[in-house]
Amino acid sequence: MKATFMYAAGDVRVEDAPDPVLVEPTDALVRVVRSCICGSDLHPYHSMKASDTGQTMGHEFIGVVEDIGSEVTSVRKGDFVIAPFAVSDGTCGFCLEGLQTSCLHGGFWNDAHLGTGGGQAEAVRVPLADGTLVAVPGVDEHSPLLPSLLTLSDVYGTGWHAARAAGVAEGDSVAVIGDGAVGLMAVLAAKQMGAEQIILMGRHKARTDLGREYGATDVVAERGEEGIAKVRDLAGGLGVRRVLEAVGHMPAYEQALGVVRDGGAIARVGVPQYSDGQIGWPFFGRNLTLTGGPAPARAYIEPLLPGVLDGTVNPGKVFDRTIGIDQTPEGYRAMDDREALKVMIRF
Amino acid sequence: MKATFMYAAGDVRVEDAPDPVLVEPTDALVRVVRSCICGSDLHPYHSMKASDTGQTMGHEFIGVVEDIGSEVTSVRKGDFVIAPFAVSDGTCGFCLEGLQTSCLHGGFWNDAHLGTGGGQAEAVRVPLADGTLVAVPGVDEHSPLLPSLLTLSDVYGTGWHAARAAGVAEGDSVAVIGDGAVGLMAVLAAKQMGAEQIILMGRHKARTDLGREYGATDVVAERGEEGIAKVRDLAGGLGVRRVLEAVGHMPAYEQALGVVRDGGAIARVGVPQYSDGQIGWPFFGRNLTLTGGPAPARAYIEPLLPGVLDGTVNPGKVFDRTIGIDQTPEGYRAMDDREALKVMIRF
Repeated sequence: MKATFMYAAGDVRVEDAPDPVLVEPTDALVRVVRSCICGSDLHPYHSMKASDTGQTMGHEFIGVVEDIGSEVTSVRKGDFVIAPFAVSDGTCGFCLEGLQTSCLHGGFWNDAHLGTGGGQAEAVRVPLADGTLVAVPGVDEHSPLLPSLLTLSDVYGTGWHAARAAGVAEGDSVAVIGDGAVGLMAVLAAKQMGAEQIILMGRHKARTDLGREYGATDVVAERGEEGIAKVRDLAGGLGVRRVLEAVGHMPAYEQALGVVRDGGAIARVGVPQYSDGQIGWPFFGRNLTLTGGPAPARAYIEPLLPGVLDGTVNPGKVFDRTIGIDQTPEGYRAMDDREALKVMIRF
Repeated sequence: MKATFMYAAGDVRVEDAPDPVLVEPTDALVRVVRSCICGSDLHPYHSMKASDTGQTMGHEFIGVVEDIGSEVTSVRKGDFVIAPFAVSDGTCGFCLEGLQTSCLHGGFWNDAHLGTGGGQAEAVRVPLADGTLVAVPGVDEHSPLLPSLLTLSDVYGTGWHAARAAGVAEGDSVAVIGDGAVGLMAVLAAKQMGAEQIILMGRHKARTDLGREYGATDVVAERGEEGIAKVRDLAGGLGVRRVLEAVGHMPAYEQALGVVRDGGAIARVGVPQYSDGQIGWPFFGRNLTLTGGPAPARAYIEPLLPGVLDGTVNPGKVFDRTIGIDQTPEGYRAMDDREALKVMIRF
């Protein structure tokens, strides 16, 4: 089969790889129907050290179950399934409380210890299939809903997680930092949770326009002190109660500290590209809360699925370019150059 | 009047100071009946740069109203009052939502911009008296409840704030880091909120014994990796859901990160003596929440007062030494040497 490998920063290749096979009795094999490139894939795209063997890529996919191990009971051959971006057993203490990203036996796609490849490939061996996969009856690979279903692998659940972790509630003022796909999904989630004011910080007009469609009431293109002043001003002078930080770089954290109201919450869902940050008196004295993390997307698939299936929401609009597997390197480049918001791979 | 001044690290003096007078029509004058020394007073006691003029000290006191400005309506001459550790107007947006430490017009005792002295003195000018002070009818300066009432100025409210910010709920597992007065009050608060397991990390037996009396189910004297392993083990291997950090030094934050369960919350109420801390992947990847800050003690006085007045709780037991105002320097020394848990000053 064809699969995507990264060999170094900026060096993405599509290569022939062995077809995956069932290894454990809890495995399933999934033929990928749609996959995509994530904003977080751009972090190694900027920084990966050269590797002779390369690294499989991709952690978002939907597809059709081709085969299952002897112990798999929740999905069957031919089922259309959504794979969230973390593998989880569905039975450990963390999974039972909906924190599947901390599963005691799971991990992330492409983790060496799971021995599984990534989603930017024609097929994937899925460990712990009962816990990991969600079957979607009535959907097949010709459904017009595929883009929106694919967002349930990651970005919609991640935006939802930001809003949920920050405690967005009816009438709240919210700032979303970042106009990438996750930022836009955070806007959508905040809107669904009843936020009254949703200020999207971003400067790419096509994206912020989509953000307005998803519920942003204001857009602030300015950055740094100027951007902070504008958000605080829009929010009545004291800042917003909830900040959803969908970037992961230090300036985004600093921006979050700048726009949040005393007593408010910052939920980060962009993977932090730093280790230490300001949590001393300027943070503490204002009774701020820092929360968020990798979204347990698995926990959100069932609750968010009905709105996708009945068309109440259309998160799939974040995909503004579709490519074939052979064009994956070009897809990375387009996202990195911000030509494309989010690239879908069609098989 | 006599008042306490700090001139440099380790240099505390009691000196004659001008009697305070009403300045603003919203002021009250309070004759102090009981005051005390706070763990946070020990931070400047360790680090204050030498000053020619000195700094007034103390932010916890109860007393009797001696005089009021023309606009004060909520307290009268002769009222017995509790002063929380922050001055607040009671009317701004932050005060109305119970975050009086962020009051737009208030501040902390001894702040230069308030022009008021500290509570370790015979009398205090109280700005914004209507917002700041709470009158306690039926109590006078001979009440046996004075020590417990004094804890409502700070430590009981601060312990309560830790448990509340961390979201302690029925059945929770909680670790409290620090066996100072605030740590012990955090134990009491966690118990009142229904925590099932309360692990107190501390090594001073008299204090941890009092902690057990307040509700600690376990005491861990070990520190560092050994202490972390012991707490995790006691909590079933995965860590505790809520950590109440009542110290403020970096090792306490590291300990908190070590004992908290994935998805759990760390509430800090010890003033952080550091600026940056670990909030990168090891924090983010586990979906941890960092919260807390200076307690809006003012908000908690009314709800916590009935339990103090009817003897349901006895937070005043944290005072294990009582001195006169002239002995204040000796009180600092005793607390710094951990001879005394918390020192009360009687006038």
